[in-house]
Amino acid sequence: MRYDEHLLKSLATSLLSRCGVPDQDALATSGVLVAAEMRGIPSHGLLRLNDYLRMLCSGRINSRPRMKLVHETVSTGTLDGDNGLGPVVARHAMELAIGKAGEAGTAWVAVLNSNHFGIAAYYAMMALEHRMIGLCMCNANPLVAPTFSAEGMLGTNPLAVAVPAGSEPPMVADFATAVIARGKVDLLHKQGLTIEPGFVQEPDGSPSEDPGVLGRGGAILPLGSTRQYGSHKGYCMAAMVDVLSAVLPGANFGPFVPPSVDWLPVKADLPGKGTGHLFGAFRVDAFRPGQAFLDAMDHWIQTMRSATPAKGHDRVLIPGDPEREAERRHGQTGVSIKPQVKEQLRHWCEKLKIGYPL
Amino acid sequence: MRYDEHLLKSLATSLLSRCGVPDQDALATSGVLVAAEMRGIPSHGLLRLNDYLRMLCSGRINSRPRMKLVHETVSTGTLDGDNGLGPVVARHAMELAIGKAGEAGTAWVAVLNSNHFGIAAYYAMMALEHRMIGLCMCNANPLVAPTFSAEGMLGTNPLAVAVPAGSEPPMVADFATAVIARGKVDLLHKQGLTIEPGFVQEPDGSPSEDPGVLGRGGAILPLGSTRQYGSHKGYCMAAMVDVLSAVLPGANFGPFVPPSVDWLPVKADLPGKGTGHLFGAFRVDAFRPGQAFLDAMDHWIQTMRSATPAKGHDRVLIPGDPEREAERRHGQTGVSIKPQVKEQLRHWCEKLKIGYPL
Repeated sequence: MRYDEHLLKSLATSLLSRCGVPDQDALATSGVLVAAEMRGIPSHGLLRLNDYLRMLCSGRINSRPRMKLVHETVSTGTLDGDNGLGPVVARHAMELAIGKAGEAGTAWVAVLNSNHFGIAAYYAMMALEHRMIGLCMCNANPLVAPTFSAEGMLGTNPLAVAVPAGSEPPMVADFATAVIARGKVDLLHKQGLTIEPGFVQEPDGSPSEDPGVLGRGGAILPLGSTRQYGSHKGYCMAAMVDVLSAVLPGANFGPFVPPSVDWLPVKADLPGKGTGHLFGAFRVDAFRPGQAFLDAMDHWIQTMRSATPAKGHDRVLIPGDPEREAERRHGQTGVSIKPQVKEQLRHWCEKLKIGYPL
Repeated sequence: MRYDEHLLKSLATSLLSRCGVPDQDALATSGVLVAAEMRGIPSHGLLRLNDYLRMLCSGRINSRPRMKLVHETVSTGTLDGDNGLGPVVARHAMELAIGKAGEAGTAWVAVLNSNHFGIAAYYAMMALEHRMIGLCMCNANPLVAPTFSAEGMLGTNPLAVAVPAGSEPPMVADFATAVIARGKVDLLHKQGLTIEPGFVQEPDGSPSEDPGVLGRGGAILPLGSTRQYGSHKGYCMAAMVDVLSAVLPGANFGPFVPPSVDWLPVKADLPGKGTGHLFGAFRVDAFRPGQAFLDAMDHWIQTMRSATPAKGHDRVLIPGDPEREAERRHGQTGVSIKPQVKEQLRHWCEKLKIGYPL
């Protein structure tokens, strides 16, 4: 069974509304989650709605935040998300960044006191229709060990950048700074398989091929896997994202990032407030005439696309190609939802007395 | 033999002056090259002076550039480097970014028509004394193959970020987005050794263990090595750096980046002007009270440093630790210079009629 985008959005919106989220905010949140489904990233899609609803029900997320710009200059702002839903806070922050960049040429809005926000690319892409480059970064729960560390101290800390082009579709890169996603490790564990070397480590920091190691104090490696293959570079990237998205606004960094699920406790004596994000917007015509940039970006895309493919491959992809193609395909055929996620949705429909439509 | 920083700087300054470079510019350039020696990165140190001098002598680099700000907003500038020495243009651009950030909170200066500029960290670190975060990126000669590409289309495209702290030394990350430096591959080749899998590929894009492959059309892999280990993330990073440091200002991107040595020809019909860079400066007090940021950054550094080391390791490093320690050591003992580099320096002293002091 495949489901229409609008049906899924409407269901998620209804469930969020029933948990006290204002209509506009419910719509914004379901838009971000369903966009992840459409773009072929279900790990950040409706799978997360269950956690969002549980966090709302238990009061761990504030359903009616009063967000506040607590610090600003002509090109910056710091937004206190008042512990609201991540997508609600993040969309507002990116809108602020776009508005400020319209005046100042470029702008950055840093966020504290927020929560899990879904796919970073969503916010970076909000800049595109304004002929701006969008940037977004976010820290995450500490699962990743710095080079030479036994302990997971950093998150998978994604970075997204969206660049508008002229006649070509935009370049949209959205990538974690860890070598593998937790979901993939957990899947191998559930299947009773081993994991190849270079992805995870034992609690003492020695190499591991056991995907169950994350449940017993092990950690994921940074992008680059080992020192020899450049894990210090992945560590540097993750550190940069952590500092810019958490230390800059005053959110929690590194090992202090609060869990994005309600069945894990929040640590006491946290150094900051909630989860942090950073959003940037660059007007392309702040650097050169806008059309000249868009033409050059078309040329860049065409140049990379025309590279000779490696033996055994058909084509060289531009960042964003796979997600855009998934979006087009799902727009035509609908998107399939995993039984586990459907079961969760059915449960919430019953609990909140909404007819289950899937 | 180990040499004093000032002696090396004075020698490099004299040689550059004799090639027509104004005193201030010669001093600026030698400062950047000797800083690389001191920080333990001789691949970007005096080894490059030979290329700089050859490029100056052959007229490939303009010894007396008239740099021009060709586009600007309150938070941005685009600087035409008039084909000057990279370090001269880059220092000026970073000064402009710092000045603009002083007013606007954050600022970015993009550069076209420049040349090889040495270590990216140098420019990012210029922000530190102003209580700003500094950022710097630069594209480079196409040696790196995008994921699924047989051809080298991107450079090792480094990214540097320098973050001030309070009582702790700053965090300074400066890393390439490729899995290995060309210099390391070439060294294995000279030694007649093979290279382990995951670093380079054959001209048809298939895996290679021959470090000589770069001389016959092969390429270096992005950070992440293979698709399975996240090479698409390294490719995304390199693409981001290429777009922001070259497409944004109108410099040459990807395969069109001009060579930084005079014995390789410049391609005809280039899409942009020279090599591109991008410099950013963020006033930390544009986001939160300055002291609060510096205190939080101290906490971040102390937290990462206190992580339990992995089995077989003594400590967890903060980005910038190894370079700062090398700088301190070299400040006490002087720095050793490779025979090959000394031979080049002696040659230039004879040619330019300067007493050889090493």
